[in-house]
Amino acid sequence: MFKKVLVANRGEIAVQIIRALHELNITAVAIYSSADKDALFVQLADEAICIGGPQPAQSYLNMSQILSAANLTGCEAIHPGYGFLSENAEFARLCAECHIAFIGPTPEVIDLMGDKAHARAAMQKSGVPVIPGSEGTVASLAEAMTTAHRIGYPILLKAAEGGGGKGIRAVAAAADLPAAFRETQREARLNYGDDRIYIEKLVTNAKHIEMQVIADTHGHIVYLPERDCSMQRHHQKVIEESPCQDITPVERAKLGNIVVQACHQIGYTNTGTFEFLMDSHHHFYFLEMNTRLQVEHTVTEEVTGLQLIKAMVRVAAGESLPFTQADAQVKGYALECRINAEDPANNFRPSPGTLQQLYLPDGTLGVRIDSGVTTGSTIPPFYDAMIAKLIVHLPTREETIVKMQRVLGECIVRGIAINRDFLQALLASPKFADAQYTTDYIEQEFLPEWRSKRDVTA
Amino acid sequence: MFKKVLVANRGEIAVQIIRALHELNITAVAIYSSADKDALFVQLADEAICIGGPQPAQSYLNMSQILSAANLTGCEAIHPGYGFLSENAEFARLCAECHIAFIGPTPEVIDLMGDKAHARAAMQKSGVPVIPGSEGTVASLAEAMTTAHRIGYPILLKAAEGGGGKGIRAVAAAADLPAAFRETQREARLNYGDDRIYIEKLVTNAKHIEMQVIADTHGHIVYLPERDCSMQRHHQKVIEESPCQDITPVERAKLGNIVVQACHQIGYTNTGTFEFLMDSHHHFYFLEMNTRLQVEHTVTEEVTGLQLIKAMVRVAAGESLPFTQADAQVKGYALECRINAEDPANNFRPSPGTLQQLYLPDGTLGVRIDSGVTTGSTIPPFYDAMIAKLIVHLPTREETIVKMQRVLGECIVRGIAINRDFLQALLASPKFADAQYTTDYIEQEFLPEWRSKRDVTA
Repeated sequence: MFKKVLVANRGEIAVQIIRALHELNITAVAIYSSADKDALFVQLADEAICIGGPQPAQSYLNMSQILSAANLTGCEAIHPGYGFLSENAEFARLCAECHIAFIGPTPEVIDLMGDKAHARAAMQKSGVPVIPGSEGTVASLAEAMTTAHRIGYPILLKAAEGGGGKGIRAVAAAADLPAAFRETQREARLNYGDDRIYIEKLVTNAKHIEMQVIADTHGHIVYLPERDCSMQRHHQKVIEESPCQDITPVERAKLGNIVVQACHQIGYTNTGTFEFLMDSHHHFYFLEMNTRLQVEHTVTEEVTGLQLIKAMVRVAAGESLPFTQADAQVKGYALECRINAEDPANNFRPSPGTLQQLYLPDGTLGVRIDSGVTTGSTIPPFYDAMIAKLIVHLPTREETIVKMQRVLGECIVRGIAINRDFLQALLASPKFADAQYTTDYIEQEFLPEWRSKRDVTA
Repeated sequence: MFKKVLVANRGEIAVQIIRALHELNITAVAIYSSADKDALFVQLADEAICIGGPQPAQSYLNMSQILSAANLTGCEAIHPGYGFLSENAEFARLCAECHIAFIGPTPEVIDLMGDKAHARAAMQKSGVPVIPGSEGTVASLAEAMTTAHRIGYPILLKAAEGGGGKGIRAVAAAADLPAAFRETQREARLNYGDDRIYIEKLVTNAKHIEMQVIADTHGHIVYLPERDCSMQRHHQKVIEESPCQDITPVERAKLGNIVVQACHQIGYTNTGTFEFLMDSHHHFYFLEMNTRLQVEHTVTEEVTGLQLIKAMVRVAAGESLPFTQADAQVKGYALECRINAEDPANNFRPSPGTLQQLYLPDGTLGVRIDSGVTTGSTIPPFYDAMIAKLIVHLPTREETIVKMQRVLGECIVRGIAINRDFLQALLASPKFADAQYTTDYIEQEFLPEWRSKRDVTA
């Protein structure tokens, strides 16, 4: 096992990684930016090195500085956490060149899964269901008609060179296709000088379902129970739960076996997460794979009782997975709410500043609070707004929601705005109660109503 | 269900009761002494009434003041917590006279189990194993010989009127009995003017094993997995664990069925705990019953996933138990350490004062911290020294101990002394590692060695 490991991250995840290292009897070295000099993770580390200014490029994304710090302190491995360099194949490669273990998958796999087209092709080859569409671009309207008929409406027409929402058009039925096809071609030619178009099935009213895997270097791969992360605002997850209320044990095992098979095929090691859309018929469509630890791994830890960060370190050190597929069972129900330093009343504007008071109500059965701040901490404006994760784990979903509401209500945060009211209203919404929300719920339904209510009250 | 409940306690347990009430959608009223005016539990309550001075007799034991406060605020029930009035039959009776529900057993049962001789007789009658001994006093040496032979050596000779360690003599073997008998008789005559003697088996090298029960008013009674509370100093529990590593599922079920049977016989309602000595042959001997919630109910909540304070409130309101015997299964392993404001280096002298800084490391899988204090809180000198309970719950005992050590090491407490080093050394002792410690371990073995080591170091 490693003796000394560098944590290339900040905030709550740096705190949790340092704790995992300490429980493995490993010396933990923190790196930090000048904005984080008084942060909790810096205090908890055994050694801490300031590697640069507050901008991420100066510090948490500064590969050469991080590698120098690791060399200087004699670290044998680097845990990248999430965000920053965690999915950067170049960094993983540089680590290997410096004979430092990167606690994550190989650079080759990070590269493969980081390229959307390559990832889709690899998944399709491995038997993972992807969003149906044309094989490459369609040459004519006639071919578009045939393809659309094959995959079923609604469909999306997409300019081959498009991106950022431009050159994309939804088509509800065959009658609308000829006009839409011509329009999209015209738009693509105009914007990109290239009128090639491809077709994809439009998956509507879908849930975001994801499944984490963890693999050692001895061929053992375990899938973990799925998470429902459909509560999203601007593609940011807000609330996560596990298991998904809609998924049966048979469906879970089927999806699990598919992703494990894919991991074998692409030579996946360490942890990662397959993200899917699930439509109302429970068809799954591969979105992407996150080749790293995710924020919401906590609900999976709670629902299985397995310590995932520690397992990542173990397998990176060449040990066998400390648990088997049989250990990765659903035990009860877990829910996470992300506390962000942002102001929902002000269009979720970030609210950096100093925490004059912070009371997060740990205590009582089933409550876990992963946080990187305490009273007096500063929330710098340079990084993401999440300051704590409230996680509740109890035998049933009903009692979990009751407790989460109580925990949210009890938080005391003075000095900055947080999204507590937004979270409480979301948890109280009927669509959350019956678990029938989909990825567009917050922006399409919840927020318009919540805002109009608030305007009336105000 | 009740709409409003008064919490007749302070500190961490008042905090946890208020939380349980809030989760049941019940308004929580706190009472407090003038020493506790800024305490966390006062802040968390919906209403709070100062009922007297800092001495317990002026406030937390002041029945008429508490009942006045309950009447004044329109409370329908009182939760007594542990300590203070929680086992006071008179208080329970006064509550009933005021038409306020006492969240605990009936006054009759509190009275019965509060009287040592009556409790022993009732338990014996109900089939609960008690410490073997003579039926009343023994009339002669000959009768003493016969009785001692029947129950087996070693035995205790006890003056009928004795107490406080006087008029008690241990006898290891039959050859020693005649002289010991005459000596004890003489001592009893001298001290109490009464030379009657009774005989009890001397249970040595025993573990303190206890089993909590909970009963509703509809005849449902559930026993909960046992706790091993043998780590005691001055009869105060220091570390508690569940399940006991030595007890098999068959033994657990057998003991559970016995205590449930006894509860049926004595008409027990609400929660309570049967305390036993268990000798090296796994014979159980009834010590006493605590007719209330105990400090260490937390490890049972963790190991079963059941919320016990909420269940107490429900059954006091006449509801059926929210779970069955089948739900009360052992799931993993739970460990609790009591953080006390006391100085182990100074013979555990209490260390009241102001918490200039308090950081208790919640976060990561399996950690629960039940506390009633925060940075800036005052620990008054008038009450018990416990300021927080650290509880860890994980699948195995090994990983739980590792995490507890890490959690203890991470605590930051400035302004008062705490018993952290003592707890860490205890957890690291070989007898704790193999779970073979008995009730005399801390005082007979651990402390002498720990002190001499410290003297050498100092």
